[in-house]
Amino acid sequence: MRHQAHHLEVTTTELPAPRLEIREIDGGEFALVWPIFHAVVAAGDTYAYDPAMTFEEARDLWTRPPARCFAARRDEVVVGAYCLRPNQPGLGDHVANAGYMVAEDARGQGIASAMCAHSLEVARAAGFRAMQFNFVATTNEGAIRLWQRHGFAIVGRVPAAFRHRRRGPTDVLVMHRLL
Amino acid sequence: MRHQAHHLEVTTTELPAPRLEIREIDGGEFALVWPIFHAVVAAGDTYAYDPAMTFEEARDLWTRPPARCFAARRDEVVVGAYCLRPNQPGLGDHVANAGYMVAEDARGQGIASAMCAHSLEVARAAGFRAMQFNFVATTNEGAIRLWQRHGFAIVGRVPAAFRHRRRGPTDVLVMHRLL
Repeated sequence: MRHQAHHLEVTTTELPAPRLEIREIDGGEFALVWPIFHAVVAAGDTYAYDPAMTFEEARDLWTRPPARCFAARRDEVVVGAYCLRPNQPGLGDHVANAGYMVAEDARGQGIASAMCAHSLEVARAAGFRAMQFNFVATTNEGAIRLWQRHGFAIVGRVPAAFRHRRRGPTDVLVMHRLL
Repeated sequence: MRHQAHHLEVTTTELPAPRLEIREIDGGEFALVWPIFHAVVAAGDTYAYDPAMTFEEARDLWTRPPARCFAARRDEVVVGAYCLRPNQPGLGDHVANAGYMVAEDARGQGIASAMCAHSLEVARAAGFRAMQFNFVATTNEGAIRLWQRHGFAIVGRVPAAFRHRRRGPTDVLVMHRLL
């Protein structure tokens, strides 16, 4: 095998990472995330959250400990956010859970990917040993491929667990990776 | 097919159902369930709940709406209890979740089975379309067989998601059935 040339071509469908600043926020800053949160939940095509959820409910869900919220800014505009939390209490709290949202006009620009990479680093630094997504709609094909590129495997599939607002009963995937 | 004899033998490993009264309780009666709850959680071999969980935390978790709590009594003694709730909010709230606990000295007597059957009826009556268990430890072999007998299928397996107090990192099953 000596002298074998190593012309490994790395191809990816990922767009170049945008210049993003991602940092943790508290409930006092959640108003910056709310327009994105509200639009994503009202669309009813990815999250199970009640589309009529209020600002206060969303803020508490995403910023009240042990939940932690991170906002991604580009040119000082919040273009995405994610929430990191233990997926279970007590004897299951070594597994993290995260949910990501990107502003509609900022999609397809690598922001979810950058937030996912960030969340994996934060989770590892916080001592989590794995990360689990409980509720990935099978219709959300771009997200599934993205999580797979970030090392997640599909470990479960729950039939018709999501009432997709346009497509109706939709299967949901459980995805997981070690950290 | 006429005149075909129907000598269907029903065999089961299930013990005869005990004379149980199962009915809903509120937070004011949760003290009757607490000794069982506390012992199950302290054992750390089935639930992820923090083994140091307080009475108030347990009571709120199992009785505060939308959670509903049911206690099983035999000879006026509470021998088991279960909690029924939506497994997700909003667009996932058609899937129920339930957790069952049986007093240690009342195990192997069909009480979990009777509570499971009861919870399926209650869930159906409440309008749920399916039931999902998110966290069935693979070490809990009796429970897995019991849920399978009650129509549940294994739809996922999460590696090492449970820190079993005696056996260490333990896989967890996701189980599901339609109602």
